[in-house]
Amino acid sequence: LTEVGIGIVGLGNVGTGTLDILVENARQIEEKLGFPLRVKAICARTFDKKQLPELPASVVRTTEWKEVVAHPEVDIVVEVIGGIGVAAHLIEAALRAGKSVVTANKELIAARGAQLWSVANRAGVNLAMEASVAGGIPIHAVLREGIAGDRVIGLYGILNGTSNFILTEIEKSNSAFEAVLAEAQRLGYAEADPTADVDGLDARSKLCILAALAFGEKLTPTDIYSEGIRRILPVDFRYAHQLKHTIRLLCSAQQTPDGLLLSVRPSLIPQSTILANVSGAYNAIWVKGAYGEDTFYYGRGAGPRPTGVAVVSDLMRVAREIRFGSPERVSPFAHDRLGEYRPLPITRYQSAYYLRFRVEDKPGIIAALAGILAKHKISLDAVLQLPLENWRDLPFVITTEPATEEAIRSAVSEMTGSDFLTEPPLAMPMERGF
Amino acid sequence: LTEVGIGIVGLGNVGTGTLDILVENARQIEEKLGFPLRVKAICARTFDKKQLPELPASVVRTTEWKEVVAHPEVDIVVEVIGGIGVAAHLIEAALRAGKSVVTANKELIAARGAQLWSVANRAGVNLAMEASVAGGIPIHAVLREGIAGDRVIGLYGILNGTSNFILTEIEKSNSAFEAVLAEAQRLGYAEADPTADVDGLDARSKLCILAALAFGEKLTPTDIYSEGIRRILPVDFRYAHQLKHTIRLLCSAQQTPDGLLLSVRPSLIPQSTILANVSGAYNAIWVKGAYGEDTFYYGRGAGPRPTGVAVVSDLMRVAREIRFGSPERVSPFAHDRLGEYRPLPITRYQSAYYLRFRVEDKPGIIAALAGILAKHKISLDAVLQLPLENWRDLPFVITTEPATEEAIRSAVSEMTGSDFLTEPPLAMPMERGF
Repeated sequence: LTEVGIGIVGLGNVGTGTLDILVENARQIEEKLGFPLRVKAICARTFDKKQLPELPASVVRTTEWKEVVAHPEVDIVVEVIGGIGVAAHLIEAALRAGKSVVTANKELIAARGAQLWSVANRAGVNLAMEASVAGGIPIHAVLREGIAGDRVIGLYGILNGTSNFILTEIEKSNSAFEAVLAEAQRLGYAEADPTADVDGLDARSKLCILAALAFGEKLTPTDIYSEGIRRILPVDFRYAHQLKHTIRLLCSAQQTPDGLLLSVRPSLIPQSTILANVSGAYNAIWVKGAYGEDTFYYGRGAGPRPTGVAVVSDLMRVAREIRFGSPERVSPFAHDRLGEYRPLPITRYQSAYYLRFRVEDKPGIIAALAGILAKHKISLDAVLQLPLENWRDLPFVITTEPATEEAIRSAVSEMTGSDFLTEPPLAMPMERGF
Repeated sequence: LTEVGIGIVGLGNVGTGTLDILVENARQIEEKLGFPLRVKAICARTFDKKQLPELPASVVRTTEWKEVVAHPEVDIVVEVIGGIGVAAHLIEAALRAGKSVVTANKELIAARGAQLWSVANRAGVNLAMEASVAGGIPIHAVLREGIAGDRVIGLYGILNGTSNFILTEIEKSNSAFEAVLAEAQRLGYAEADPTADVDGLDARSKLCILAALAFGEKLTPTDIYSEGIRRILPVDFRYAHQLKHTIRLLCSAQQTPDGLLLSVRPSLIPQSTILANVSGAYNAIWVKGAYGEDTFYYGRGAGPRPTGVAVVSDLMRVAREIRFGSPERVSPFAHDRLGEYRPLPITRYQSAYYLRFRVEDKPGIIAALAGILAKHKISLDAVLQLPLENWRDLPFVITTEPATEEAIRSAVSEMTGSDFLTEPPLAMPMERGF
């Protein structure tokens, strides 16, 4: 058997991690495959100051991605530049040129994965994307092959390492969101513009991809209700702990008889669950199968080498297909054509809820809030008030019996008008599905 | 595309679970594959009293496995009878007849996996065995594809659901091993003859398969040191908790510069780890990669449907290969030919240890034991003695600084001669590798 040639476009964190593994782990890769993977071309905006492993002089170094795609010895193109614009052009160009593509681009795959997969299929090549979700966790291999025989009925995940790091720091140190975010930025766990991470958009793209694969349904990120973590206070963790829960930015995809309920939002989850033990910059995914029941997957959510492992593992799989002539012929997206997994409005969601209020102390507040809940047919479960000093606006909590998101929203909206509230109530579901 | 034909030999728990999924989940399976899997023949010792799903009249029902193997429309044979004897004959016969085999047989694969794989390879067919380890966890898919690009440097597992159920029951209820075992037998979690489960032999077969796949080394179960859970007392959990640990039957495979350290033995593991949160009849595997760092996998260890999912997922993968003509050409076993992963004697193991003693109360016991430890150059870390009433023989604990298993064994052997001990000391490593 001869070699399979690789071209890498993008030499940021993931690109250099991939290159490092391809070079350092070359012997094991060849032993597992029976033939070598050889890097033939690499492309970066600039090669200044890059710490690259030693490569043969014959390897093309270019700043033009088209040279990588056109290189006759490149069989598989690795796209690790990210974003929607250039990445989409280059992936389409490579696929149309008959080259398989391995990508780590969650944003692009979430938005256009099924369409790009069709391009690949028409060209008789593959589009692999293990690295696009939960870097170090091989969740695509699990869904595509490992539990392919099962029917997924629910999927819960912690898919954004930055916000999980921030939440667990707030929990540990009792510090405010802004202070913890600044510290995370200093440590390099959060970007200068943290919006995509802390507002749930990054997690939403990832859930979009996972739910599309798990349920075989065409989904776009805007099908998913999402909410970030900026409003979480340290005191919310104290209340959550009283309830034997913790708070995580939870990605949730549940099948109901009417369709899919999809959301990314801060949620209370029981401390006794394994998911509650996922701390720091880790990712985790809980899958409920109709036959295999619960399985759980955990690992680094990002990082050059963990994500590089995902890229290299995809390269090995695609290379094996190229050598032995067997691309998959059925899209991992949208294998279900009956529409039973169409996304539902989040208002259909049902759960017990945690409602946290900040108020100016006056008599009759609980009575007023309880009256609004009763009006919307929501049963109150408990009222919690910690003996807090140094608070102007007395945060306290009401938990409810299971209710629909629709009823909770109507109640919250009516409460928001009350003159004793200093900000709108914070509502979080108390998730018990895993 | 036309169909791929399936023959099932064995209609016990796993066989009927597999059949149920193939029938109930047929539409999803066909949508994912692009063609159907069709059951063509089933074989059982008897069909009396079997609750089987409805099958077409054309499906062959037989008590002779040879009829399944010889059936011209059977492309893949499922072996789910277990054991070494008949199973080995039938798998070899099927492979030599040019039929791929899917098996759930851990005992056979642990003992002869690499050899059977060679038979399959020479015949140009596949031998798939996801169901042979940790039923509901797709760990083979993970090692073979998901993290193929990584180099595994350590693997820790809880691989026997029965003993994990018994240990967590002892922990919860403070009851003796014998009472909990009897209860587990009553509930169907333990077999009438519990030896394979509680003495670590079942877990040893599973670790043997996983380590062979993870490290690419030829291994047999007797390469693995194993020890069961019969000696664990409820009081061991009380001491473990004092040390912020719990006790699990831990399977451990660690790469060292000199070779592999392999063991199955009750071990103390820190309560703060995710592995310590694995309770009841669940399985879990912690993998350390040179590049991808830590990943973790959790699910049902057994059960007709979780194991059935593993069988059906293997069937889908092998069927895809048959349709598109691409069996793997490199053995998942023994891809490393340099011998750097040869198993080492367990005496090379290094760890802090927990030593538990039952003694007749006399003066000078601690001094005598500490003297023996000092003589073997083992540093004592702590002495723990709970205020226990109603104990004739006062169990107490000494923990050590890291020492080799060899030194610990010498010390324990010397201690065992002491007249104040009512039984030999119980030594367990305190595992901190994950």
